[in-house]
Amino acid sequence: MKMLTKLSAAVLTASMLTACGSDSDSDNKSEPAGSQGQVKNLILMIGDGMGAQQVGILEEYARRSPANAAHIDRVTGLQKLAENGSLGLSMTAPMGTNAGLVVDSACSATQLATGQGSISEAVGLDDNGNKVETILEKARKMGKATGLITDTRLTHATPAGFAAHRPHRSLENDIAEDLLAAQVDVLLGGGSRHWVHDPLAGVDLTGMDDDQKKALRKEKFAELATELNAPSHVIKKTKRSLDDDRRLLTEAKNAGYALAFDRTQMNAVSGGKLLGLFDDSAMNDGIEYTHCKNAATVEPGNKCADEPSLKEMTKKALDILSQDPDGFFLMVEGGQIDWAGHINDAGWLLHEMLKFDEAVQAVYEWVAERDDTLVVVTADHETGGFGVAYHKHDIPQAKTLAGDGMVNSDGSARDYKPNYNFGSLATLDKIYAQKRSFYDILDSVNGDWDFSNSSAAAWVEEVNASVHEDFRIDNESGERIAARYDVPVEEQHPDHGYLKATNIPLFNDFSDFYVYADEDTGALIGRELAAKQSVTWGNGTHTAAPVPVYAFGPEAITKQFSTLQHHTDIGQKMMAALIAE
Amino acid sequence: MKMLTKLSAAVLTASMLTACGSDSDSDNKSEPAGSQGQVKNLILMIGDGMGAQQVGILEEYARRSPANAAHIDRVTGLQKLAENGSLGLSMTAPMGTNAGLVVDSACSATQLATGQGSISEAVGLDDNGNKVETILEKARKMGKATGLITDTRLTHATPAGFAAHRPHRSLENDIAEDLLAAQVDVLLGGGSRHWVHDPLAGVDLTGMDDDQKKALRKEKFAELATELNAPSHVIKKTKRSLDDDRRLLTEAKNAGYALAFDRTQMNAVSGGKLLGLFDDSAMNDGIEYTHCKNAATVEPGNKCADEPSLKEMTKKALDILSQDPDGFFLMVEGGQIDWAGHINDAGWLLHEMLKFDEAVQAVYEWVAERDDTLVVVTADHETGGFGVAYHKHDIPQAKTLAGDGMVNSDGSARDYKPNYNFGSLATLDKIYAQKRSFYDILDSVNGDWDFSNSSAAAWVEEVNASVHEDFRIDNESGERIAARYDVPVEEQHPDHGYLKATNIPLFNDFSDFYVYADEDTGALIGRELAAKQSVTWGNGTHTAAPVPVYAFGPEAITKQFSTLQHHTDIGQKMMAALIAE
Repeated sequence: MKMLTKLSAAVLTASMLTACGSDSDSDNKSEPAGSQGQVKNLILMIGDGMGAQQVGILEEYARRSPANAAHIDRVTGLQKLAENGSLGLSMTAPMGTNAGLVVDSACSATQLATGQGSISEAVGLDDNGNKVETILEKARKMGKATGLITDTRLTHATPAGFAAHRPHRSLENDIAEDLLAAQVDVLLGGGSRHWVHDPLAGVDLTGMDDDQKKALRKEKFAELATELNAPSHVIKKTKRSLDDDRRLLTEAKNAGYALAFDRTQMNAVSGGKLLGLFDDSAMNDGIEYTHCKNAATVEPGNKCADEPSLKEMTKKALDILSQDPDGFFLMVEGGQIDWAGHINDAGWLLHEMLKFDEAVQAVYEWVAERDDTLVVVTADHETGGFGVAYHKHDIPQAKTLAGDGMVNSDGSARDYKPNYNFGSLATLDKIYAQKRSFYDILDSVNGDWDFSNSSAAAWVEEVNASVHEDFRIDNESGERIAARYDVPVEEQHPDHGYLKATNIPLFNDFSDFYVYADEDTGALIGRELAAKQSVTWGNGTHTAAPVPVYAFGPEAITKQFSTLQHHTDIGQKMMAALIAE
Repeated sequence: MKMLTKLSAAVLTASMLTACGSDSDSDNKSEPAGSQGQVKNLILMIGDGMGAQQVGILEEYARRSPANAAHIDRVTGLQKLAENGSLGLSMTAPMGTNAGLVVDSACSATQLATGQGSISEAVGLDDNGNKVETILEKARKMGKATGLITDTRLTHATPAGFAAHRPHRSLENDIAEDLLAAQVDVLLGGGSRHWVHDPLAGVDLTGMDDDQKKALRKEKFAELATELNAPSHVIKKTKRSLDDDRRLLTEAKNAGYALAFDRTQMNAVSGGKLLGLFDDSAMNDGIEYTHCKNAATVEPGNKCADEPSLKEMTKKALDILSQDPDGFFLMVEGGQIDWAGHINDAGWLLHEMLKFDEAVQAVYEWVAERDDTLVVVTADHETGGFGVAYHKHDIPQAKTLAGDGMVNSDGSARDYKPNYNFGSLATLDKIYAQKRSFYDILDSVNGDWDFSNSSAAAWVEEVNASVHEDFRIDNESGERIAARYDVPVEEQHPDHGYLKATNIPLFNDFSDFYVYADEDTGALIGRELAAKQSVTWGNGTHTAAPVPVYAFGPEAITKQFSTLQHHTDIGQKMMAALIAE
């Protein structure tokens, strides 16, 4: 058997199919006539932090949850892509002259978007810090429509990597300017706080103290919300400075964008350019979204009623972008899978996977009947070193089985009694039953996320109000969640956003891998639920585990993804499929 | 585009290729004439505990280690399979009436071998405890030759799942009997202690005390070793009882097996049945093997000189089994990847992956020029929740980059200074440089693995003698490794092999997931190296993360593996490919 590389095999199969002139169904899977191995449209979906194990819990829940049925189809959207397309794996680490072992979302998005090595925590730059044209920018140059969607902030690392060029991901105000300058046709997500100007700009503040300014700002934000016809939870905060003279929303309007701040406004837009900002920071988390979806009615004005879902944003973008006769590039991010991972929250994670998969399902349905579109679904990295694992807590009792193999060497009957607890399927439903994300639990204990004086009792109360009754914790658990650690002076970093903290939650094992100060307190909750959930976490950061890559579309293109590639390879394969030379 | 399932797409493509009558290279990839979608030979390779992340560290080392070059090819055997075949993912959990969330090796091997749900910790039984015919047994019935290879004990869970039927994996003496009864043609591995009888059987022991019996047993083992022409490290111990009247080695000889106890004896066998037992328990671990391989000379009589490698055993099995005109089924296990994972030892893990990949490479070379053989490489589960992760230890200094994107909003130059340590490529070489496995370190501290009174100093000395100089630990680390915990009475399990322990190593986080008493002490070493290695672990057990599946051979067969399947699906796909109805 002469061996072919993925790419040459793909091309060969395509040409063979053409030569064969077959009229079988399979023929429909070849690329559109005249553009060998190319597609008109490309939809890239990124599950931020979605490693193989994160997909695993979604699939286990979908396929085997005893209670599931009403919630989602037993066959996920991801699985439809895999069964009818290709599944492979991809490595994500920073490549090139400033290579590393583990990637952050900014570098990973950039490597996917450019097919080149990049640097940590920067967007749209190569491995030496040079600005590089992304697949979105190339697509636009070809006359294609473009779109970016996320359920976190539009200016967050993942969307930013496709249309911004900045030396650090934290420069989100600048990134908003870049997204606008890039003329991305459809921009849908959260993070209005980086787009809205400070409403006190131009106001005479002479003689006002901070409290007065704060009160006035609140008032002005309310006025601005009314002016924009936006819900109050969207227009309530800004990260832009008082002396910043940019008015990005006005600029967007002048550049032809329709603005949308809630679902109704979004749905009213049927073409052209669209900027939708549906929250000041992240949009509804997966658990909130599940509640919204399952609620019979949601009161008008409630965030739940206002916000379009990831699926709805995706469908709207497809409606608009597909009107371009030249085709389109669309990136859709499920961004909070990663957040649930950082904070070691299995319940939140499951609901984020369900929310993301709904969007995948919508894309699958849109693409399934077409032959001109490539769908690639992958992650930027795995988050948290998540795992469902066996353990010694609550080992099941012996059980008699009927089988003829249940005998000892001497012929005597032997009961079924494993040495460990390998986890019960009912656990999936208990994980699903979680009522609030750990973030929301932190909020309830202290809205400022300062837990330096939190009490064990407060943690017990808020956790137990949120988790399945079988997962409830006791006061000892509460004390471990409240436990703190004084950072030694030599380990303090006074100029660091997080590591300047002098008193942080106490992790005993792998403490160097919990790097977000008070935010990490959630991961201590995760530890207390672990044995009951059959869940473990390795860290509060990212791992370098190769992540799944789903490819769906013309088989001649998708088959090349069924290998262990690197994200720069995915970037190159996507460009080869979408961008004409 | 009408959607096809993997299986129907595969069959369609195959029939289309036939109908097309093409003489292109691709045609060579179709199945042998007259056996639509089938192969003559099947080689299944199982990396025990080899999740995506374990493959990740192998690939990172192979592709990007600064020092590597002499050690292995930059392109691994696994990658050759992926590039020229298919890569997918598979879920591993126990299925059926006694389903669970996490699998052990026995259940996983059984599910692969039978295509049916099984129960935890049993071999060759279905989900109700009934004996089920395995793919190996079916292949044998068809007249095919069969083989099982491992670098742990032949009677260990993974090989056992293919040819034994017992209610618990721990019944290794019984499993040896089953393997023999199954007439597996080639059996190569360790674990002679379950095959060799007690040499005191039949000896008059009247009036002897335990010490005298022990001394006499040692003498008799030496005589037996001489009689068998076996190295002393192979014939030195038995787990069979004094009143056991089976003589398995004699029975094997009588059944036509050539016996081999070292590499020379194995190499002397060129056909027929072969039973090779090369150690009393596990064979050389990956680090020992690397040393053997790299040593200019190894003294005769040294275990290192005697033991064939996993690759050598594999090649020998292929030589013998391929003589059968009816074809063959061969299972090859890299069994110690799992052991390194359980004990959270990244250095050992890397060397096990390298050792396993050598065998994969040999199989690739053997199969590459054929069109009648299917290779499937997968894991039974992931072990340890392993991850390479970013952290706050030793954050790199700022660095000036030349790129035009390294500017702040105000146009001023901005240095490259990520907020965290994303790991340096040099770390891969330092992990590789580990001189001994954690098991060997435990041995050095106490040969009986009783660490109830171990000193911090002993741990510091033995760890620092084994790890790269940049990974050396201090006395505080030694104290954490020596730290112990008295198990409360209500958590003790007096009848449990491991959980009967009343004093165990102290894990602070996720302690329910460390279930092997003193053996887990190694995982405490892992914690002390973690930040220096950029490595974290979630547990000392297994995770349910979907594992990679590589398939190589006729494309019409291999393409169906590029999905997210379950191990029972793999079992069924393998049977469909190898076993005639």
